[in-house]
Amino acid sequence: MGCANKDNLPKSYPMVGGDGTQSYAQNSSYQKGVMDAAKELIHEAITNKLELNIMGLSHTTGTFHVADLGCSSGPNTFSAMQNIIEAVELKLIQLAEHQDPSALEFQVFFSDQYDNDFNTLFKTLPHSRRYFAAGVPGSFYGRLFPKSCLHFVHSCYALHWLSKVPEEIVDRNSPSWNSDSIHCTGSVKGVAEAYSARFRNDVEAFLNARTQEVVPGGLIVILILAVPDGIPFPKTAAGVLYDVFGSCLIDMAKMGLISEEKVYSFNLPIYHATPKELETLIQRNKYFSIERMEELNHPMRNTPFTAEDYTSNLRPVFEEIIKDHFGNEYVNQIFHNYTIKIAENLSIIEEKTNDIIDLFILLKRIISTD
Amino acid sequence: MGCANKDNLPKSYPMVGGDGTQSYAQNSSYQKGVMDAAKELIHEAITNKLELNIMGLSHTTGTFHVADLGCSSGPNTFSAMQNIIEAVELKLIQLAEHQDPSALEFQVFFSDQYDNDFNTLFKTLPHSRRYFAAGVPGSFYGRLFPKSCLHFVHSCYALHWLSKVPEEIVDRNSPSWNSDSIHCTGSVKGVAEAYSARFRNDVEAFLNARTQEVVPGGLIVILILAVPDGIPFPKTAAGVLYDVFGSCLIDMAKMGLISEEKVYSFNLPIYHATPKELETLIQRNKYFSIERMEELNHPMRNTPFTAEDYTSNLRPVFEEIIKDHFGNEYVNQIFHNYTIKIAENLSIIEEKTNDIIDLFILLKRIISTD
Ligand SMILES: Nc1ncnc2c1ncn2[C@@H]1O[C@H](CSCC[C@H](N)C(=O)O)[C@@H](O)[C@H]1O
Ligand SMILES: Nc1ncnc2c1ncn2[C@@H]1O[C@H](CSCC[C@H](N)C(=O)O)[C@@H](O)[C@H]1O
Repeated sequence: MGCANKDNLPKSYPMVGGDGTQSYAQNSSYQKGVMDAAKELIHEAITNKLELNIMGLSHTTGTFHVADLGCSSGPNTFSAMQNIIEAVELKLIQLAEHQDPSALEFQVFFSDQYDNDFNTLFKTLPHSRRYFAAGVPGSFYGRLFPKSCLHFVHSCYALHWLSKVPEEIVDRNSPSWNSDSIHCTGSVKGVAEAYSARFRNDVEAFLNARTQEVVPGGLIVILILAVPDGIPFPKTAAGVLYDVFGSCLIDMAKMGLISEEKVYSFNLPIYHATPKELETLIQRNKYFSIERMEELNHPMRNTPFTAEDYTSNLRPVFEEIIKDHFGNEYVNQIFHNYTIKIAENLSIIEEKTNDIIDLFILLKRIISTD
Repeated sequence: MGCANKDNLPKSYPMVGGDGTQSYAQNSSYQKGVMDAAKELIHEAITNKLELNIMGLSHTTGTFHVADLGCSSGPNTFSAMQNIIEAVELKLIQLAEHQDPSALEFQVFFSDQYDNDFNTLFKTLPHSRRYFAAGVPGSFYGRLFPKSCLHFVHSCYALHWLSKVPEEIVDRNSPSWNSDSIHCTGSVKGVAEAYSARFRNDVEAFLNARTQEVVPGGLIVILILAVPDGIPFPKTAAGVLYDVFGSCLIDMAKMGLISEEKVYSFNLPIYHATPKELETLIQRNKYFSIERMEELNHPMRNTPFTAEDYTSNLRPVFEEIIKDHFGNEYVNQIFHNYTIKIAENLSIIEEKTNDIIDLFILLKRIISTD
């Protein structure tokens, strides 16, 4: 059976758990803004594209299975799941011929890496939820669920995390060596190729696993940070933020606090694709049709951020990976320096705010004929 | 939908999590002994009583859903689940007409209270497992799963935990007041009645929930510590252990370390029923047939225990409840005193070793006609 084996999986870097001031839970309002913007589109998807009867469900019978892949420890995932369930319930009410309350039940699978803080997730589950909750640990680049059991899959802000850093970019002897850069800048051709090849393989694995797990007719909603077609990533605001972050690491090496070698070997396992790249990858899978793919507009995009805002957004996301690579003792200093440098570069970043986009993708599992 | 609402649930007392020297994981070899003894009986149950076709499953299709209720944070639950799956796989091989490997998939739901240490459970999942794993938080005295989705339910050493301490026994003005005793001694008639009424309601709720969740034809295995018919609980070894534990609390009150009131208000939410009591309760539910009910014999029963063994068995189970009631600062002292007192009473306890029994109960969900 194709269960994920955690030994074969690379390290993972969960968002900061718990609900402290530096937790992901307390610092993910930007992501929440994206979800709110997606809310309406998800309602439309369920109203127009979800065919309950094809999936063997009806007003009177069955269990509707939803999965959130890369759910973190909450609370964003709770609003996302509630939104999906409300939309399905609304659809049921519209479909119902008489006034009986629906007998359809819901089961929600909250899924994330093995070291995600599921304890916090479970303890903070909404009290008044109308679904049975379960947690599913493991990487979404492998199988997580039995065959044909999911009716709706949701994944927000997670699929830009690669399964691992491409090996060649940390190899000094490779033409794709990324030297002191920490992400996919595109200045070295081999680096960009290595990153995009890794992403291609990962998305392929993601879609192959979902092909097995999603029932024919089932829907997948992917929310992902993407780079507009034709614009190189380093030219986006996010690209500048990553560069600034990288330069903080170099500064620390110059001050002799961390070794240069450590900085050279550090790279973010993150890749931001273009809509075109994503489209091509999805089409190659053949089991999913692209029902919708568009840029999301949401108020947080136009909210001015202070340097501190940038740090408190980034820290819960990068803290684990920094700790893992550089050790616990440098974390505070790195993020402190980052805030200062961002403040110095605020105008450059602000000019670029609209460069990187939040992409909404709606896929439908094709009712295959083989 | 009948989802458990954690607000309406009383406190729960998880086993000590993690894998430290005082964790449940490191101190549950007695329970493991019980499971090993049950292994053979579970194999027989699956071979003789499980009708896959009635449940819509076969060699070639479907997903077999197993749940372990009150699984704690491992590792016992992993061997129990593996044993069940191996038995089903064996059965499939025997059923298969040709040599194709089975296409049946397995999903295991590890379920325990909201504050169980699921993080440890997930991180220590066996690498080579042949099932998809999920965690389900909540009390088994309420609904945890969608309708008719479970094929096999397992629950070991958990159902003697009551949903709460019966209220009347902590009420000074009630004839059922339990004064300075901490468990169901039977010396006050009202106390025994209050405990057994709570147990009756709880088991009823447990079976009602499972009636909904288990598919017709599905099996439930319950392993539970029981009192032999006709023997009062205080006369068993466990009864003496609880009495000794209670006397340690009284000692601490006498030394002025904790208040007498605190001791009076402390009672264990634990009840050990007799096989006869359990049989009556199950028969009242009407949706389950008792396929087997017998005392388990296992080597741990006859292993001589030192006083330290008794403490390291008890501590991970009672630590949370003691902390919660008396505060963290007294935990070490209480268990230290307990070890001393047990050493003093070792001969009395040893004489009674065989009094309390491990009961194996096999239920089958009746294929109802309504
Ligand atoms: N391969 C993988 N498998 C499962 N989860 C992954 C993953 N790679 C990254 N993630 C998870 O993806 C999450 C990204 S943070 C986004 C959390 C949430 N969806 C929200 O929008 O607020 C993290 O919790 C991270 O652990
Ligand atoms: N109402 C309830 N609902 C779910 N789990 C419960 C419960 N009452 C007690 N438990 C759980 O039952 C477990 C008993 S310890 C037994 C653990 C495991 N089955 C083994 O045999 O090793 C604890 O983890 C406790 O949290």
